[in-house]
Amino acid sequence: MEYSKVTPEDLKALASIVGAPNISSEDYDLVTNAIDAFAGEPALPEAVIWPESSLKVLEILKYASKRRIPVYVRGGGTGLTGASVPVHGGIVMNMMKMGRIIEVRPLDMQVDVEAGVIYDQLNKELEPHGLFFPPDPASGKSCTIGGMIANNASGLKAVKYGATRDYVLALRAVFPIGLDLRLGSKVFKYSIGYDLARMLVGSEGTLGVITEATLKLRPLPKNRKTIAAYFDSIEAAIKCIGRIRLSGIEPGAIEFLDRTHLRLVAEWSGLSLPDRECMIILELHSYSKVGLEEEASDAINLLKEGGAVELVAPENEAEAERIWEARRGTYPSMLKACRSPIVGDIIVPLSKLLDAVKKAYQLAEKYQVRVGVMGHLGDGNIHTNWLTDRRNRDEWERALKANAELTRYAIEIGGALSAEHGVGLEKKEFMPEQHKEVLELMRRLKEFFDPNDILNPGIML
Amino acid sequence: MEYSKVTPEDLKALASIVGAPNISSEDYDLVTNAIDAFAGEPALPEAVIWPESSLKVLEILKYASKRRIPVYVRGGGTGLTGASVPVHGGIVMNMMKMGRIIEVRPLDMQVDVEAGVIYDQLNKELEPHGLFFPPDPASGKSCTIGGMIANNASGLKAVKYGATRDYVLALRAVFPIGLDLRLGSKVFKYSIGYDLARMLVGSEGTLGVITEATLKLRPLPKNRKTIAAYFDSIEAAIKCIGRIRLSGIEPGAIEFLDRTHLRLVAEWSGLSLPDRECMIILELHSYSKVGLEEEASDAINLLKEGGAVELVAPENEAEAERIWEARRGTYPSMLKACRSPIVGDIIVPLSKLLDAVKKAYQLAEKYQVRVGVMGHLGDGNIHTNWLTDRRNRDEWERALKANAELTRYAIEIGGALSAEHGVGLEKKEFMPEQHKEVLELMRRLKEFFDPNDILNPGIML
Repeated sequence: MEYSKVTPEDLKALASIVGAPNISSEDYDLVTNAIDAFAGEPALPEAVIWPESSLKVLEILKYASKRRIPVYVRGGGTGLTGASVPVHGGIVMNMMKMGRIIEVRPLDMQVDVEAGVIYDQLNKELEPHGLFFPPDPASGKSCTIGGMIANNASGLKAVKYGATRDYVLALRAVFPIGLDLRLGSKVFKYSIGYDLARMLVGSEGTLGVITEATLKLRPLPKNRKTIAAYFDSIEAAIKCIGRIRLSGIEPGAIEFLDRTHLRLVAEWSGLSLPDRECMIILELHSYSKVGLEEEASDAINLLKEGGAVELVAPENEAEAERIWEARRGTYPSMLKACRSPIVGDIIVPLSKLLDAVKKAYQLAEKYQVRVGVMGHLGDGNIHTNWLTDRRNRDEWERALKANAELTRYAIEIGGALSAEHGVGLEKKEFMPEQHKEVLELMRRLKEFFDPNDILNPGIML
Repeated sequence: MEYSKVTPEDLKALASIVGAPNISSEDYDLVTNAIDAFAGEPALPEAVIWPESSLKVLEILKYASKRRIPVYVRGGGTGLTGASVPVHGGIVMNMMKMGRIIEVRPLDMQVDVEAGVIYDQLNKELEPHGLFFPPDPASGKSCTIGGMIANNASGLKAVKYGATRDYVLALRAVFPIGLDLRLGSKVFKYSIGYDLARMLVGSEGTLGVITEATLKLRPLPKNRKTIAAYFDSIEAAIKCIGRIRLSGIEPGAIEFLDRTHLRLVAEWSGLSLPDRECMIILELHSYSKVGLEEEASDAINLLKEGGAVELVAPENEAEAERIWEARRGTYPSMLKACRSPIVGDIIVPLSKLLDAVKKAYQLAEKYQVRVGVMGHLGDGNIHTNWLTDRRNRDEWERALKANAELTRYAIEIGGALSAEHGVGLEKKEFMPEQHKEVLELMRRLKEFFDPNDILNPGIML
């Protein structure tokens, strides 16, 4: 069955739903909604629509379903896998006008938000209450809560606090079968039938449109301490990560940067960073200041015994900030160095970390392409960044091959094709290997929720 | 459509699948598999079958599907809501012969188990590795991991560590549509399509049979401290709970017992407990001993400022153990006092805790039935225990009414009908109020996974 093109009549009908200022078919809007942060081909939609309420979303989906026009849901446009790229044209439904923080309920340690709320803005709003929403994706300045839920986003703090999934209590979601539903319950735990709220987590806009969410919150850590440890051996560094995880210390972040990234960041930022094989950064969080000191001292001992050759454990926030500046510099410094890196996002069981990292370097050798390895190694999540430029077609193809081979390797050794970036367009090809016959069940579930296949068609499945 | 009765031919065919010793239609087996810990009517199955592998489960489900014989899945039989009561007869599939701990993978901080593994046995096995599976249901001595997953079970430690859902990474599950699938991935976080593994969490055996699970583990807390605080005002106690939650201390347990329970426990156990309005028990967990002392001292100050009239903060484990003995005594002491109490399991947002507890006492007054209030109030989960005896039919009916009215009230104020015991038979009647139109979607999903409605028919939905 073919999709319908958006006609002038459709534009008129949709404008009567959302109001003329909330729909556009002008080039500028089509182009700026044609791709997210995915290093792939953009695809032009035929219209962009900005709903301002769940009821509008429902009317739009009903209309699009009847006319069989594809609807691609878009949050902050920061996705790295192309999950909002309108590959079949149609409409991009841009959620940025649903950006209201509905209610902060500090005594409940919960917040109700619309899907278009920006992550950093939410946490700024929560700070005076001493609370936060922890997942901490690197795109926090621009990504939306709806997008985070659709991708089960996470980041630096997942190792201690978990991913977005662990904070979604209730959702409001609109389905193309004509339903505007409230899923889950605004309580911390429940056993009340099928967990449909969390079933939408990670569904990448293919089942329903998330319009509102209720999130669990946590008290801000009272005390923090950053420790940076440099190693001349990746094996030693990775063993340290395992020992720290098993020690019971439970740092708020356990990050890793290899020499390639250390050099790129140093060049880009002017920070003077030791030229070592790799670096681990820990951020310890503790209620008690003396408790934090004990944890820090034990962590430092573990790192030293484990082979750290240089250690920095700043006494003040400003110095700690410099270490995190280096960490945050990995993405921009990489963009500067190679324009269009391919960002890997595999995750493996902790005991397989070293194998996976070694494999990345072997593949870089095999395909003759530079790789930088970094990421949230504390929870097994490795970002292997293939430093390439799309304009160099040949190298680009080799980098894609290297990334594909590594992703397959991760699945083979018991890991997953994505920890936090999702599937989108980029990793669809690996889904059969990841899921085998389960993929067919997923496709049938998609059909169950979206029988006309209008929601993000071509994405994920 | 009617269900088929189990015929002698069926027994023969099923025996050829599982082997004669693994199937029974003898009275003793039928009676002991006719009810769980639910205070309701037992229902006799026509056969009991003990599969020893996922493949056997698959063959049984295929056969039962074809013949349209109901299959009720049973773990430890500790469920409080009747989720394994064979209301339509048929077969009870008893999972207790799938009790193998397949592999402890300490470096991965994961364990692979069969569904019939007992919670306490698992944690005993994990202890030498310094790891544990935290949810801690009161039935830990007898409940199975499969049953915990099917109910999203939790308990004392959920306030800090979360419920079963938060620990399920991957499942093996068998579906009546003839599928034996591996769902999820053995890594700490993922974004790889629909989260079917966690969709089965809380599904109470109605979608598929969970046969194996991979669980995330946590390091055992290094240091623990128990604090008991007695209050003459329930309002003051509940306000303290809120303040502690917001303080950032994050205790491993925040429990509550009212005067009724304190007296019952004291009578039953001979422990001398102060005769106060209520009691809060905290268990603090910390990596650092000095950190723990600071947390304890701050918690004690919060409790004192909040109106605690007596405080016990034992210096040694043995004394702390006595406090937990009192807490653990609530259920047996209640059984002694009234034979068949009706155990409530509502959960509300923290700001509504006082309203819900007050309502329970009002309803006890209105329906002239005794109530004891206790539970995991730190996460909003209140167990209201209606102290009644089924043999006193009139009182029993009044207690049921009181419990029903309280459950409806919890839903009305934004809470849920069950935090951790599930829906089963007991709370089916409240599902329409909890979910409104979502319930219809749940029923359609059940049909999607189990078109012949053979899995736990009559349960939950």
